[in-house]
Amino acid sequence: MTKNENEMKLGAFFMIPGHHVAAWRHPEAEADQIMNFDFIKRLAQTAERGKFDMIFLADGYAVRAKDKTALSQSVHTLFEPFTLLSALSAVTRSIGLAATVSTTYNEPFNVARKFASLDHLSGGRAAWNVVTSNTEGEAKNFSQEQHLQHAKRYERAEEFVDVVTKLWDSWEDDALVIDKESALFADPSKIHSINHKGEWFSVEGPLNISRPVQGHPVVIQAGSSEDGKELAARTAEVIFTAWQTLEEAQGFYADVKGRMKKYGRSPDELKIMPGIFPVIGRTEGEADKNKQLLEELIPEESGVALLSGMISVNLSGYPLDGPLPDLPDLDQVNGGKSRFKLLKDLADREGLTIRKLYQRIAGARGHREIKGTPEQIADQMQEWFENGAADGFNIMPPHLPGGLDDFVDLVIPELQKRGLFRTEYSGHTLRENLGLKRPSSNVGKKVKEMIETNK
Amino acid sequence: MTKNENEMKLGAFFMIPGHHVAAWRHPEAEADQIMNFDFIKRLAQTAERGKFDMIFLADGYAVRAKDKTALSQSVHTLFEPFTLLSALSAVTRSIGLAATVSTTYNEPFNVARKFASLDHLSGGRAAWNVVTSNTEGEAKNFSQEQHLQHAKRYERAEEFVDVVTKLWDSWEDDALVIDKESALFADPSKIHSINHKGEWFSVEGPLNISRPVQGHPVVIQAGSSEDGKELAARTAEVIFTAWQTLEEAQGFYADVKGRMKKYGRSPDELKIMPGIFPVIGRTEGEADKNKQLLEELIPEESGVALLSGMISVNLSGYPLDGPLPDLPDLDQVNGGKSRFKLLKDLADREGLTIRKLYQRIAGARGHREIKGTPEQIADQMQEWFENGAADGFNIMPPHLPGGLDDFVDLVIPELQKRGLFRTEYSGHTLRENLGLKRPSSNVGKKVKEMIETNK
Repeated sequence: MTKNENEMKLGAFFMIPGHHVAAWRHPEAEADQIMNFDFIKRLAQTAERGKFDMIFLADGYAVRAKDKTALSQSVHTLFEPFTLLSALSAVTRSIGLAATVSTTYNEPFNVARKFASLDHLSGGRAAWNVVTSNTEGEAKNFSQEQHLQHAKRYERAEEFVDVVTKLWDSWEDDALVIDKESALFADPSKIHSINHKGEWFSVEGPLNISRPVQGHPVVIQAGSSEDGKELAARTAEVIFTAWQTLEEAQGFYADVKGRMKKYGRSPDELKIMPGIFPVIGRTEGEADKNKQLLEELIPEESGVALLSGMISVNLSGYPLDGPLPDLPDLDQVNGGKSRFKLLKDLADREGLTIRKLYQRIAGARGHREIKGTPEQIADQMQEWFENGAADGFNIMPPHLPGGLDDFVDLVIPELQKRGLFRTEYSGHTLRENLGLKRPSSNVGKKVKEMIETNK
Repeated sequence: MTKNENEMKLGAFFMIPGHHVAAWRHPEAEADQIMNFDFIKRLAQTAERGKFDMIFLADGYAVRAKDKTALSQSVHTLFEPFTLLSALSAVTRSIGLAATVSTTYNEPFNVARKFASLDHLSGGRAAWNVVTSNTEGEAKNFSQEQHLQHAKRYERAEEFVDVVTKLWDSWEDDALVIDKESALFADPSKIHSINHKGEWFSVEGPLNISRPVQGHPVVIQAGSSEDGKELAARTAEVIFTAWQTLEEAQGFYADVKGRMKKYGRSPDELKIMPGIFPVIGRTEGEADKNKQLLEELIPEESGVALLSGMISVNLSGYPLDGPLPDLPDLDQVNGGKSRFKLLKDLADREGLTIRKLYQRIAGARGHREIKGTPEQIADQMQEWFENGAADGFNIMPPHLPGGLDDFVDLVIPELQKRGLFRTEYSGHTLRENLGLKRPSSNVGKKVKEMIETNK
């Protein structure tokens, strides 16, 4: 095992001003700074001081809810990931920059190009969290009556990722010559049309930007459904996923890594990073108090609206201190299937009321919450990391900047002391820091051969 | 006349590594730095030192030519504007950031959102140069066999701009309350669905980002066709245009400003900024030498390819030192109509050979070239500015960084000495520096009234 493999990978999942639905009400949250770049720049520089592998941004193409309660009580204004991460690239040096970008309401040429541009701007620090869009609100912002059915979204996503990858490879690594004397700027035999013709897209190429510094920006996926696992085994380099128990996480880890062989990939070409919502206290009592403070800040209507949105069932009107009503079968759900199942199982397993369930998910949103002292949090991360459940974690601070400051100042030093996390960046690119190989530009030659074979 | 109105507006049109087709071969051009952000950051900081109103980026969605000559001899790799300008926003303070973004191969929700995000990131410095895409190469990168016909492109563009504007107004200026005590983050009565249903788009809204700092990012247009002039008179705040003679420029200026009244707009709500390609020398002889050096650096095949692309007629095979062949009628051109007409007229007027014509346009690409000492260049700018031909200029440096350095160090001080250009930024936002009013968020209320009327 190399040193690299002994160390976990960490993402800093920024949701401004924190992952908890009531984060903005936290006494220390700088809620009035959420549209101020200098605030987010400070957060990014803190994450880089903590040697996080990457900053991770979620995304969506609509306000998350339109009822007056949700609009009034929670945060519905956010920066767009490409623009924000590009700005952050100019004020950081080593940390990766991961943008969630949907394959449902974008065009592959535009997405390939923006990631290539971000990768060049940042000197090789870009990553793409590939998602599909699954809400009616998003469909209606893109001239659609309904959002695409689950399987169709994944078909489109698979082809989308293929086209983007081909476009990144449409310039070979050494295509730029830049010889002033002979007037040879680029070698045209190393710039290829891709001539993709598929069910969803026809794209001729080449891209109008040279091959990304990393060859391909790192590809992240999040889906944990059957379709999602298969796509990830074939194309993902990082999986961001949600599990509550060690056993579930181990099962998922073995399942996905086991599917990779048939695509000619080795298990270490994919890093599985479950989300963690850390509630940190210098003592257990302080951690409990921090958690309780956040729970008390959730307005009841907001809690119900949040939970309703996550399971695609309207829960308003049901008694808060009673159980969940009967829910539809999984195969009738056309939203996030894995999240629906996770929450239903959690409520059944622990006999949670609606109130307890929304309090539970109001921060972590289905991801694992770890509450305790820095040592206790490090213990639990270590347990998963050393027992085939995770290659690292995506850290979801409850509120900002405090939740991130505490993780960097208290938990990271504990992980470093145990030899579980880097004390300095070892690579120049995100790919190097994650221990992922750079895709060869032979891929470009393969495309060329394929095209010539098809002629 | 306020001080503001006495001063011309200036854009720094960055084409990396310069506007001249052979710029990258210039002995001083840092051609190997074109994909290096630090190089472009240095250019942006030079432009800001010169107190330019804005950095202006052109754009396209395909390599400009696919023949081996063009691919090998000219620059076909460029940063994508949103990502580059966002990165520049973090390393500049006052200069505006203008991105060219097409209405043909994008969705209004995505474009409205990225500009709003850039405007928040930069503290109110974003501008949108609205264009349509008109090449077959671009169509084929977006699953289309052919590009849209000229009038259709403009119909789509008009509706696109309307939708984007409504989305910017979907949050009123004072929608964010952020009162932790009462759990009121936003006032839902000030966040509006737009419920747009048009021929091209159906968009429900609202946007998922609050109203831009400038209300609306500044809207720039470039088209000089009939369709383009009408769209500009209705919606543009800046026009970037190309004219060779004072008389033509005056005619255009009076024409467009004269069309504004019927849309309830006053002439000073629109700044007309022709492009200028300045070839600067400390003496006339030095300027001549600079020009000649650039002309000699144009490979013949590249010159012909460039000209062919600009008039949509393949000129290879015709004698370089003979005249243009017979060209098709204007109404058969489905590319850039105004550019076609300008070049045809120029060749006819001056009896230019193919070689002389490509040498003439290899830098300025149809825009006005001014060659001379700083005083001579300032004289010609002053003549247009004071005689109803221009409110300012978009400056197109032949090669970078030298062409920009010379303009900032030699021409700007001359303009400042004559009281024709600012010595400090007067405003915080681009809109303020350009002397343009901030659109009121009453527009948001108007949208609301309109929607309620339609219920």
